[in-house]
Amino acid sequence: MYQFSQAFRNPVGSPIRELFKYLNDPEMISFAAGYPDPQLCDVAGLRSASERAFAQPQRCLPYGGTDGIEAIKDQFVRLMGRRGVRAAPENIVVTTGSQQAFDVLLKVMIDPGDIALVESPTYPTNINALRVHGARLVPVPMDAEGLDVDALEGLLEAMGTAGETPKLLYTVPTFGNPTGALLSLPRRLRLLALAARFRFVIAEDDPYGDIRFDGDALPSLCALAPQVEGAEAWVVHMGSLSKIVAPGLRVGWSVAPREIASRCVVAKQTADMGSSPVTQSIAAEYLASGSLDAHLRRIRDSYAAKCDALCDSLRELMPDAMSFTRPAGGMFVWARLHGGVPASELLAKAIAHKVMFVPGAGFHPGAPDPSTLRLSFAAPSVDRIREGVCRLALAWKETGTPTPRALVATTLKH
Amino acid sequence: MYQFSQAFRNPVGSPIRELFKYLNDPEMISFAAGYPDPQLCDVAGLRSASERAFAQPQRCLPYGGTDGIEAIKDQFVRLMGRRGVRAAPENIVVTTGSQQAFDVLLKVMIDPGDIALVESPTYPTNINALRVHGARLVPVPMDAEGLDVDALEGLLEAMGTAGETPKLLYTVPTFGNPTGALLSLPRRLRLLALAARFRFVIAEDDPYGDIRFDGDALPSLCALAPQVEGAEAWVVHMGSLSKIVAPGLRVGWSVAPREIASRCVVAKQTADMGSSPVTQSIAAEYLASGSLDAHLRRIRDSYAAKCDALCDSLRELMPDAMSFTRPAGGMFVWARLHGGVPASELLAKAIAHKVMFVPGAGFHPGAPDPSTLRLSFAAPSVDRIREGVCRLALAWKETGTPTPRALVATTLKH
Repeated sequence: MYQFSQAFRNPVGSPIRELFKYLNDPEMISFAAGYPDPQLCDVAGLRSASERAFAQPQRCLPYGGTDGIEAIKDQFVRLMGRRGVRAAPENIVVTTGSQQAFDVLLKVMIDPGDIALVESPTYPTNINALRVHGARLVPVPMDAEGLDVDALEGLLEAMGTAGETPKLLYTVPTFGNPTGALLSLPRRLRLLALAARFRFVIAEDDPYGDIRFDGDALPSLCALAPQVEGAEAWVVHMGSLSKIVAPGLRVGWSVAPREIASRCVVAKQTADMGSSPVTQSIAAEYLASGSLDAHLRRIRDSYAAKCDALCDSLRELMPDAMSFTRPAGGMFVWARLHGGVPASELLAKAIAHKVMFVPGAGFHPGAPDPSTLRLSFAAPSVDRIREGVCRLALAWKETGTPTPRALVATTLKH
Repeated sequence: MYQFSQAFRNPVGSPIRELFKYLNDPEMISFAAGYPDPQLCDVAGLRSASERAFAQPQRCLPYGGTDGIEAIKDQFVRLMGRRGVRAAPENIVVTTGSQQAFDVLLKVMIDPGDIALVESPTYPTNINALRVHGARLVPVPMDAEGLDVDALEGLLEAMGTAGETPKLLYTVPTFGNPTGALLSLPRRLRLLALAARFRFVIAEDDPYGDIRFDGDALPSLCALAPQVEGAEAWVVHMGSLSKIVAPGLRVGWSVAPREIASRCVVAKQTADMGSSPVTQSIAAEYLASGSLDAHLRRIRDSYAAKCDALCDSLRELMPDAMSFTRPAGGMFVWARLHGGVPASELLAKAIAHKVMFVPGAGFHPGAPDPSTLRLSFAAPSVDRIREGVCRLALAWKETGTPTPRALVATTLKH
């Protein structure tokens, strides 16, 4: 009856949404949602930050600036400084999670029909965000080291020959969703050089960078950009407190060249006038208290232990079922089932055993690989993770997949 | 250097933004911004609501549903019930202010080139929102009784003859911004009948409806829709706590037919995943406490007194300067300067006298009327309002406009 816009005639939600109905089942063990563990949240720290925020009602109860309130912008300038990025307040736009930072950037950059490069696989809500804005998606393959920059260069050259230019590339280079892969330093530098050469914006989504299990941090693309000639103008970095402080604050931010940032502010004005100064104030008070460092150590240790529990249990209890690489940070294990078993088939059996995960098909912007799946270890406890893998192993058996020896031969073909 | 999207090659901000720089001047009396008076904010009530919200960290600190948390949706169902609207939770989408309710609706309804009807004059940020989405704007004239439905019917018939159909009409029928006009009951009913006949969505923006100075409330278009055959499917109502509780919460909502609401939820997922459960929880606790009724009485009385102070002072101190109608509610007086004086000329002189307002040109989606202006009485105190009009009278004198007698002749031409 209604004449909806093109993108909303047959709208597609996140592949996780259809699993939401099971989340209220206390017996269900969920490897599905990319939620941080609520048990790890610094509730006391946030409660006292909220008291300090409400002690300054003139800051948190009126409208704030569309770009964000000064207190949190200052904290983000500092936080980015510690991450090796020199940003001025004018480069920062505070948003309702990094999700909004991307949506606002798309408003500013994308007209229907424009080309956007996306990692394959990638975060499905941003595949949808790009489709809502009418972008033509061009998938770029990934491997264990992240985005395949050789393949990207080939694509860019082919596009150039065809007279086409992509507007932007969406990437989660550090412990990305869903693969958990970490883009290597040489690839980071090459990617930046390609952006400068082919003049496209790199939209660097970095919600997981602080959740590093061991070793030194690799600098973000944004931090590296000044080292690559001409690259600095082409990086928009998106940060978020959702995975490291609390999703419910809905506080994210982007760091962008001024010409882009100022347009993002105009776009955000029509989008929502500005994010809540209440939650911005709470976040600013929390960051100013210096509690984040200790909290990050705590969540890194916990997520590392959970990641080990998941990977060790999968190897121990389901040695023939799937291939995966243990991630060095983040919240996700990305796997491919052996024997060509579709993940949706395993999921149906898994749900009967009260365990769930997300089939990988929805993470592919182009042709889906139906045997892939994403397992998140962030929310369940170590004990529940082990129990969850036991249940998953039972579900796997029920698929009746061939014996290990036959599997080895199959796997080698990949 | 960048290839921005069509709408952001030469982005236009709100006409109020350029006056922001004067807001920090304590001597400046501002009739410019449409802010509620921070002195009227129920800070104690909101602080204790926030304490109750943080006492339930499992509700406010994780992600909430994209459509909003249950507690606030239940409160909005109740609030709408008291306003004569029967809505189910499935009809309600909680948004970051009603600004986002409109942006999300545009995502769902508007493709570039689609026609949108807008009142003239209207709220400029939503003129921009429509332009960002590529809508073709068709202005509909207004008078003291609000939208001119005869003119609208003529426009719709002409469009029909030309084979064109508008996707939606944006209207603020109750104490609208900038005119303060109240759409009469007969016009409301006719507008609903037109929507049913010509099959366009009425986007009813209602942030000011509760700020009624006297008399009984007129039912909103959403409340009246069930009385007009076929109209109920065509009304999307947008509400906000910004003007009646606190802008800093950034809590608004829309009430929409299910088919539209469910698409708005998908659109909101890509826009920001969901508004903050922290501020939704604070708002839910505040509304559940029953404090809103007493607070509304207080702000109505105060805004009525301020409106009288502004209108009486203008008539007393600047009797020949402008024509206006005293509004029956809301925050704004809309006026037209006599003698063809451009409001921008008066503003320049006014700023030198430390008083400011918003010239009306930016409120017109089509040809601007440069002699119009918007005066907001909400934020300054009664004393400051009187002092502000004294200063404005001095500025008016400096424009050297002809004597009253000459003016009468000019005015009659309008």
